[in-house]
Amino acid sequence: MVVVMGIDPGLANTGFGVVRVAGSSMSAIDGGVIETSSGLAPEKRLSRIHAALCELMEWHEPVSVGLEDLYFGKNVRSALAVGQARGVAMLAAAERGLSCTDYTPQAVKMAVCGSGGAAKDQVQQMVGALLGLPSPPASDHAADALAVAICHAGHLGRENAVQLASDREGALA
Amino acid sequence: MVVVMGIDPGLANTGFGVVRVAGSSMSAIDGGVIETSSGLAPEKRLSRIHAALCELMEWHEPVSVGLEDLYFGKNVRSALAVGQARGVAMLAAAERGLSCTDYTPQAVKMAVCGSGGAAKDQVQQMVGALLGLPSPPASDHAADALAVAICHAGHLGRENAVQLASDREGALA
Repeated sequence: MVVVMGIDPGLANTGFGVVRVAGSSMSAIDGGVIETSSGLAPEKRLSRIHAALCELMEWHEPVSVGLEDLYFGKNVRSALAVGQARGVAMLAAAERGLSCTDYTPQAVKMAVCGSGGAAKDQVQQMVGALLGLPSPPASDHAADALAVAICHAGHLGRENAVQLASDREGALA
Repeated sequence: MVVVMGIDPGLANTGFGVVRVAGSSMSAIDGGVIETSSGLAPEKRLSRIHAALCELMEWHEPVSVGLEDLYFGKNVRSALAVGQARGVAMLAAAERGLSCTDYTPQAVKMAVCGSGGAAKDQVQQMVGALLGLPSPPASDHAADALAVAICHAGHLGRENAVQLASDREGALA
């Protein structure tokens, strides 16, 4: 059984999702949004995001973290703001010795919906279905973060399989 | 007497400069570059930048921090990387209760050289001259960070003057 965390970073809204994987079954442990007010100074907003993520990581003890990468349509200004939120999220992981892996929105959609071009509501539907939730997550940001966690769990699963296969080859050689 | 810190954030090279202002005279206390290897995972590089800046802030006890803003020519990818480094720099300041102020490269050049379009080597020359250094800083990043600190010190000086003037008006009213 492993626990992984997905993060969809943003200065105003940072989505997070925590997923437990046991064999082929997956379940959601936690998911939500860290909101910060535009009335706060940016450095204080970043400090809140960092503190909230540190607390969540301490609580849930994920083995590693998946992060949503930037989508192409972003402009330089919003890329800078997202980058700042990403920076403190990655730092929170590094401070616990956790590695971070980036996933493009396309890769996440492919992992969750089977198509890189899936619509937002399709992602929400599939996140709810794959994690056996009573209803799809209400928040886009939480759904995106849970989708990243599902994608990351799948990626780790494949890595483990490759590791096992190469161990077996090593044992047979 | 106040001490201010300037930071020119970047994932590979984060320049820092610490300047002491006493009346109309300014002097450099510290300046240099925090370098991180591209062989390290990005989250570890961010963790090193954060740790180094925390140490410098603890050592020099600046009253506030100036940060170089992004210049327009940057693309989305590099804006994201710079944003990540900015994020952990701003967090280091927030963790000590210090406020951050952004300055565009144009504003910094204007403050140091009297022209927003000044060349790199002009900035290095003027930083050396204004801070009474035996020679201009060898590193671009350190020179840029010291220039941000000079610009920030000037900005704080003006803010104080406005504050004093408004206090006086208040007293006369």
